[in-house]
Amino acid sequence: MFESAELGHKTDKEEYDAAVPPLRTALLNAQYEVLDLKQFAVVVLINGIDGAGKGETMNLLDEWMDSRHIEGWAFDQPTAEESERPFMWRFWRALPPRGKIGVMFNNWYTQPIRDRVERIGSKADFEQRLDEIRRFEDMLVQEGVLLVKFWFHLSKSGQKKRLEELEKDPRTRWRITERDWRFYKQYERYRDVAARALRQTSTGNAPWMIVDGSDPRFRALFVGRTLLAALEKRLDVARLKHAPRQLAPPLPPLIDQRDLLNSLVLRQEMSKKEYDEALERYQGRLALLTREPAFRKHALVLVFEGADAAGKGGAIRRVTAALDIRQYSVVPVAAPTEEERAQPYLWRFWRHLPARGKTIVFDRSWYGRVLVERVEGFCSEADWMRAYAEINDFEDQLAAAGVVVVKFWLAIGKDEQLARFEAREAEPHKRFKITAEDWRNREKWDDYARAVCDMVDRTSTENAPWTLVEAENKYFARIKILRTICERLEAALA
Amino acid sequence: MFESAELGHKTDKEEYDAAVPPLRTALLNAQYEVLDLKQFAVVVLINGIDGAGKGETMNLLDEWMDSRHIEGWAFDQPTAEESERPFMWRFWRALPPRGKIGVMFNNWYTQPIRDRVERIGSKADFEQRLDEIRRFEDMLVQEGVLLVKFWFHLSKSGQKKRLEELEKDPRTRWRITERDWRFYKQYERYRDVAARALRQTSTGNAPWMIVDGSDPRFRALFVGRTLLAALEKRLDVARLKHAPRQLAPPLPPLIDQRDLLNSLVLRQEMSKKEYDEALERYQGRLALLTREPAFRKHALVLVFEGADAAGKGGAIRRVTAALDIRQYSVVPVAAPTEEERAQPYLWRFWRHLPARGKTIVFDRSWYGRVLVERVEGFCSEADWMRAYAEINDFEDQLAAAGVVVVKFWLAIGKDEQLARFEAREAEPHKRFKITAEDWRNREKWDDYARAVCDMVDRTSTENAPWTLVEAENKYFARIKILRTICERLEAALA
Repeated sequence: MFESAELGHKTDKEEYDAAVPPLRTALLNAQYEVLDLKQFAVVVLINGIDGAGKGETMNLLDEWMDSRHIEGWAFDQPTAEESERPFMWRFWRALPPRGKIGVMFNNWYTQPIRDRVERIGSKADFEQRLDEIRRFEDMLVQEGVLLVKFWFHLSKSGQKKRLEELEKDPRTRWRITERDWRFYKQYERYRDVAARALRQTSTGNAPWMIVDGSDPRFRALFVGRTLLAALEKRLDVARLKHAPRQLAPPLPPLIDQRDLLNSLVLRQEMSKKEYDEALERYQGRLALLTREPAFRKHALVLVFEGADAAGKGGAIRRVTAALDIRQYSVVPVAAPTEEERAQPYLWRFWRHLPARGKTIVFDRSWYGRVLVERVEGFCSEADWMRAYAEINDFEDQLAAAGVVVVKFWLAIGKDEQLARFEAREAEPHKRFKITAEDWRNREKWDDYARAVCDMVDRTSTENAPWTLVEAENKYFARIKILRTICERLEAALA
Repeated sequence: MFESAELGHKTDKEEYDAAVPPLRTALLNAQYEVLDLKQFAVVVLINGIDGAGKGETMNLLDEWMDSRHIEGWAFDQPTAEESERPFMWRFWRALPPRGKIGVMFNNWYTQPIRDRVERIGSKADFEQRLDEIRRFEDMLVQEGVLLVKFWFHLSKSGQKKRLEELEKDPRTRWRITERDWRFYKQYERYRDVAARALRQTSTGNAPWMIVDGSDPRFRALFVGRTLLAALEKRLDVARLKHAPRQLAPPLPPLIDQRDLLNSLVLRQEMSKKEYDEALERYQGRLALLTREPAFRKHALVLVFEGADAAGKGGAIRRVTAALDIRQYSVVPVAAPTEEERAQPYLWRFWRHLPARGKTIVFDRSWYGRVLVERVEGFCSEADWMRAYAEINDFEDQLAAAGVVVVKFWLAIGKDEQLARFEAREAEPHKRFKITAEDWRNREKWDDYARAVCDMVDRTSTENAPWTLVEAENKYFARIKILRTICERLEAALA
């Protein structure tokens, strides 16, 4: 959930000063059109970690737009009047009418997350509250509300730094209390609970937008542009006669060109000698682990995704070499067959699920929905937007059944891919591996990169995290993959 | 949930024999068109009480349609192969491809309901499983599946009678085991758990159809015609270019003209003397109950709905006469104001919710969504179909906050209404009560009756049950209302 928001995004002053005036103009224009049309209300949720700039951003939106038509609500402990009534009463009171924008700071998420951090109520109670929120928000969207949800994030060290800064400055010292430091001590638990909440409520119609809160200029542009894109998309729909089913705001635009993939050091060092030694060690560990009696209560699902020529095949062979041939199979995933196209999207993966004690390796997978199908337009935006939640549900069910799900993205650069393509074409026995489609896919490199980053942010979960593999050095990549599988299995069998 | 299914619906042989041939032809035609179009799959769920005709109906569908293109699945205890895999695996395997019809007997509902009856897992676990099902079914619908869910119901005495019949007949004796009688002993618990499950999973896109299982001919026509209407509606959509958002099957058609309202004895006996005595007694009880210290932890919401001139106003005055004027208010609900129309539908009711210790009387209510708005077409079918679930969620939240919700439908006949209209028009000081709209509404009497029955079936819940009030004798009606309020309050404060 927070992968992209921990990259340390930054916007320099010059760029920011140039970007703000046109952004403000566009936001104001959009706001007035929303007001004129009176077709839908806008609800902006501001949640997240303390010190990540929630209050500042609220003030900024108020300053940038026409504050007469923005209503800001900062909910604190319920007042006497509020606590006399059902939990949601005060939020219903605060809903903006059509044409207006409501910004809600600390809202229906605050209490359920806080309660779960403090272990008030069971895990199942927490899940139930999240489902209630899901239904509530779904109702809002069906009733025509444009719902834009921002979660302000800081890494643990980022939060510490921020709290210390605020404490040092005499003008802001008053803002930091004992309570803030107490919350900081619970950082990991808060983050994990929040990640679960965000994931369960990040639906096709109302996805969360995660804000990297560390740089004030970056986060201001991020929130401003994301909100603007949401308003503009929704205004486009409002002008149509036959509104499409997809009413969700679009995912955030890129602000500083920095993303999960281009932040990786793709070429890592590993010598042939180190590799040979490590290969033997990890293959041995994996062989033992999958033959342990405890493994018979589990199963292993490995997902390999990556750019063309990233080395998936070679990596898969190094893994299966350690497995009992009767206990695993490799499922290469290509375009769906006619039989598969006649079924719901996930059907063709369900049919391959392993029995206990078995391993299935998916060479490409259900992530095609949010990668190739998204980029090539094989499915509608509504379809791939809801797929994140559907995939998370799917993998949750696997985890609940004891299946260990390990997912790899093998990352290489565009130049490295070109070199590998050319090398393959030069070798007669490898030429078949390169097709015209591979060359075509290269042209959409940036679209794929964007789709990969969204995929990792939205489907890397506590049950089934993604591992990004720096794959320009194949030795390094294979060992990282083997080691990751061993570690995940050891944790599961412990 | 089961109100209409306990009316003892019946179809005589002559009517049945005349109805079946055209029904079979229509079903077959629809089936072949589904097969030709190959645009969507049909999943029919068959669940419910044992002995209510589930198996017979499955066989019948197979007989009535082309069985080569129907796949029937009767799930029992998971096989070894199935229990090795996640819970949903076997159901995914059984999904029919586009163009085909799959009938699933005992499906993803059976185990969660059975477990809850046996108290395996907590209430919150059960709610979580229901939410998983909701999400799964929503995915199916989004993927284009037509989902038709039948729940076969019998009253407790009906089930007993049925089991005894089966046991007596030498040809069917083998079907009844110890297990069936053991389940029968848990009838009430099973019914309550099932009602909760049905309510939580009866969504705008996949509503449950409750089958009165007591008469084989009635239930056969009911299932056949409901399925036919679903197929035909969906085929209409499939032929359109721009499919609307509403993909739900329509609610079941009437089969035997018998419904909740016309099964009531509308004119009940009560003399003026009995009335005066009872009025004093119940008003006194209500006065005491609302002044008890325990009531300060609760609140009371009274909902009055009914046909025009059914006597809501008079009944409300007899209730409020018992209340402290500082502690209650009456909210007359008319067409929404401009301010209210700019908000989600339920907003205008949320704003009136009582603080603890207070009483709010709604003279008409949020049920307008599924009554006047449905009948007059003020909202789309998709809107009022999802409203049942939204209203149940809303009232659940009230109940969770300690609010006692008591809902009345005041029922009078069409002739009685006419007599009352004429009497009012004859009296100058009451003439203002009758408007042209009242006369117009009369013309849609049958549509309103249908809407009322659906409303009661779909929103009468353990937290907020409906009370149908036979209201042609006003004395009787007022006393039934007062008594019901007292009893609900006594139960809540106990």
